[in-house]
Amino acid sequence: MSFNKVLKEKCTLKNNRLCIGLDIDNQKLKDSSLDYMQDFIKDIIDATIDICPVYKINFAFYEKHGSKGFKILENLCKHIDDKAITIADAKRGDIGNSSKYYAEAVFDHFNFDSVTIAPYMGLDSMEPFSSFSKDKGVFVLALTSNSGSKNFQTQLINDNELYKHVIELCNNMNINNNIGIVVGATNVGYLNDINKISNNLPWLMPGIGFQGGDLKQSLAIGEKNYLSLVNVSRGILYFKDGSINSIRESAINYTNEIRKNL
Amino acid sequence: MSFNKVLKEKCTLKNNRLCIGLDIDNQKLKDSSLDYMQDFIKDIIDATIDICPVYKINFAFYEKHGSKGFKILENLCKHIDDKAITIADAKRGDIGNSSKYYAEAVFDHFNFDSVTIAPYMGLDSMEPFSSFSKDKGVFVLALTSNSGSKNFQTQLINDNELYKHVIELCNNMNINNNIGIVVGATNVGYLNDINKISNNLPWLMPGIGFQGGDLKQSLAIGEKNYLSLVNVSRGILYFKDGSINSIRESAINYTNEIRKNL
Repeated sequence: MSFNKVLKEKCTLKNNRLCIGLDIDNQKLKDSSLDYMQDFIKDIIDATIDICPVYKINFAFYEKHGSKGFKILENLCKHIDDKAITIADAKRGDIGNSSKYYAEAVFDHFNFDSVTIAPYMGLDSMEPFSSFSKDKGVFVLALTSNSGSKNFQTQLINDNELYKHVIELCNNMNINNNIGIVVGATNVGYLNDINKISNNLPWLMPGIGFQGGDLKQSLAIGEKNYLSLVNVSRGILYFKDGSINSIRESAINYTNEIRKNL
Repeated sequence: MSFNKVLKEKCTLKNNRLCIGLDIDNQKLKDSSLDYMQDFIKDIIDATIDICPVYKINFAFYEKHGSKGFKILENLCKHIDDKAITIADAKRGDIGNSSKYYAEAVFDHFNFDSVTIAPYMGLDSMEPFSSFSKDKGVFVLALTSNSGSKNFQTQLINDNELYKHVIELCNNMNINNNIGIVVGATNVGYLNDINKISNNLPWLMPGIGFQGGDLKQSLAIGEKNYLSLVNVSRGILYFKDGSINSIRESAINYTNEIRKNL
């Protein structure tokens, strides 16, 4: 089955669109050892996986620890298994030959269900990810949630913003129904525009919570499309005292808020 | 001392501009074990470091092997030490918070001298790398050597190609004299244009050899700038029988060709 279809099934089954970002800074834990960090992440998963359909793992937080950090990544996908969808938030992209190896890394070696990629290098840098297998998904950076999105992404090329050209390419590439786009929820002004051109692409929306994105509005527009995932990282991980109980409480709060708006 | 200054000193000392890309596919070696791969790479370094000032390591070839691949990366920088400049060809780029962790990973943990980054997410995604330390360098993807460079990089924004806007931002960011740009040598038609706007930025030029870039022409134009590095990967690694002797022979050939054109 295609990735986008499986994604929709998992989200429908759990009646949720929450994507928890497992961006754990070990320095902010009461024990900064990597063993503790790994156990803590597994506890977060165990405490939320009954309601959470998707987990996003930003590689930066693991690469920081070198080979030992990647060892944790190897264990996390096994732990989640097929009980939820996993997104390797790695923002990769290289010439075709190298992108192929990156695809092998995230999909084969680490066994993630999907990956985020950066489009700057164009079609042949993206294609090795989308053509890897139709059950492996690719979320392409379109309009991101940071201030730097204004440097290039919202600049006009032939009367259309760069990010719209990226989405157009994604539409053309989506022959396996396994491509989605990253749409920063902090740019609510742009969401309606994107909605007009991305009917068949699921949205991954970072920026809710800590970065200030509006959940209700984002979801209302995003859900007019194929599907929209609401990613929350720091807003859940650092809720109240940051304990597993608080994390579950926050995940439930977001889930209720999402269900109200579905 | 700033990264760009150290880079120039190393290149001047060895009277060379060669950057060997250590993009080793273990499946193409006579023994595909990772131990053999690591020893082979160390042998390549030992056999060329008397003439080669810069080594570029594409992370895709190592990430493919997961944590064990990153273990090799940890050992390679130690092996090269300060006898040559190292480039982590990782093409990273994320929101500021995550880019900071990627910078810590490549510069602190793996101890690379420099890194390649992708500019799609703009200024605040790039700055954590360039402001990390003035003796750590950043090569920003401007115009790449692959066909996909035409999808977005060469598209016009306000009468100038996207890659020129990227270079303009690089110029503005270069307050620590530690920023360079990636300029694909397969796009000789564009090199003269880039030369006019990148006086103070070293060029990293992939695409020579296997990808068909013209060494003589690329170097002639590139050297009008601050400095130009000629990156060769497959053209050296797979020369003749691909033995260490053949690799050294090819590195010497490229070095002689470079010296003739300096």
